[in-house]
Amino acid sequence: MVSGFEYVRDGAEIYRRSFATIRAEAALGDLPADVAQVAVRMIHACGMTDLVADLAWSPNVVKNARTALQNGAPILCDAQMVAAGITRRRLPADNRVICTLSEPGVPDLAQQLQTTRSAAAVDLWHDHLAGSVVAIGNAPTTLFRLLELLKDGAPRPAAILGIPVGFIGAAESKDALAANDLGLEHLVVRGRRGGSAITAAAVNAIASEEE
Amino acid sequence: MVSGFEYVRDGAEIYRRSFATIRAEAALGDLPADVAQVAVRMIHACGMTDLVADLAWSPNVVKNARTALQNGAPILCDAQMVAAGITRRRLPADNRVICTLSEPGVPDLAQQLQTTRSAAAVDLWHDHLAGSVVAIGNAPTTLFRLLELLKDGAPRPAAILGIPVGFIGAAESKDALAANDLGLEHLVVRGRRGGSAITAAAVNAIASEEE
Repeated sequence: MVSGFEYVRDGAEIYRRSFATIRAEAALGDLPADVAQVAVRMIHACGMTDLVADLAWSPNVVKNARTALQNGAPILCDAQMVAAGITRRRLPADNRVICTLSEPGVPDLAQQLQTTRSAAAVDLWHDHLAGSVVAIGNAPTTLFRLLELLKDGAPRPAAILGIPVGFIGAAESKDALAANDLGLEHLVVRGRRGGSAITAAAVNAIASEEE
Repeated sequence: MVSGFEYVRDGAEIYRRSFATIRAEAALGDLPADVAQVAVRMIHACGMTDLVADLAWSPNVVKNARTALQNGAPILCDAQMVAAGITRRRLPADNRVICTLSEPGVPDLAQQLQTTRSAAAVDLWHDHLAGSVVAIGNAPTTLFRLLELLKDGAPRPAAILGIPVGFIGAAESKDALAANDLGLEHLVVRGRRGGSAITAAAVNAIASEEE
């Protein structure tokens, strides 16, 4: 036993108390049960119970994403931090976690397309898109580019977790996803908030209901 | 040129506008200039300008951490997500980024110490601690354990970025760091907020002043 500060040292107990606090404080009552379960873990990752107010979702997003993962779908991430935050042992089918941002062709493609590397990296998702789970936790341009490609007929993901963060384009890209007329299943955090930790937490919650 | 949505596609311009928005909206005036520069990047990572209100710091934390990095100090991270978020090309001396959480001995050590794996992983930092930059963005128990070891005479880091997130112990661990009587140089985000993205952003801002 270590001496010193007084704090909870039992990992399982920390999780239990954390999730109990979130369920006591967050306004989860207006969410479908499956979205609420995902929201709890998203809140756990950011420490903010008021995240609920910014959530928008389509009715089947959690169900479809979960089924896709159970059937072996890959997870397409916009950033290495998102990929790093996905707990591999929670994945139901040893699913591939793909981030194309650092692939060698991306800088040239970005220049050719006159866009960011984050957006250009989406063009390398093409062969993996059909039935995938997309997890965007960093760059608004990734989400905009994905929506453009889908409008142009690219293969459709099973679900899109659109949670980029920031001040330029983040809110707008998430509004565009939430308002999409392609019938895309989506979960977004409206506004400026978002990020890789919240996004990875959403994936982890969808991958396994275990708390 | 891609067609479709209207959004800024120039990465440098996105950064410029983002940082301009943050500087216009955030109450940076009360911060020392070097802390303000770090705060801008932390805010950029989470989308929340009011993060400033929760910042606490010791006067030399940025200066000491920056000098340490320039002199080749390693960066000790509590989570792979923090490590993944550190932009290697910003590091001034190709500094080592160390995360011991997944090392094979950690689960046994956690059981032996009756604590979390995150806390046990700190015991493996011993040989790297002297003069290091510590970046804690996930687990409060990591920060508590580090403070215990330092109280017991462990080698001292040059600076501690204490930014764990969550509901159980996060606020308390950061208060303990901010109130430390060991003269530890520190930067914390008080309260429940924190996380790997904000923490990695702080490291990136300290590593290089480039925006």
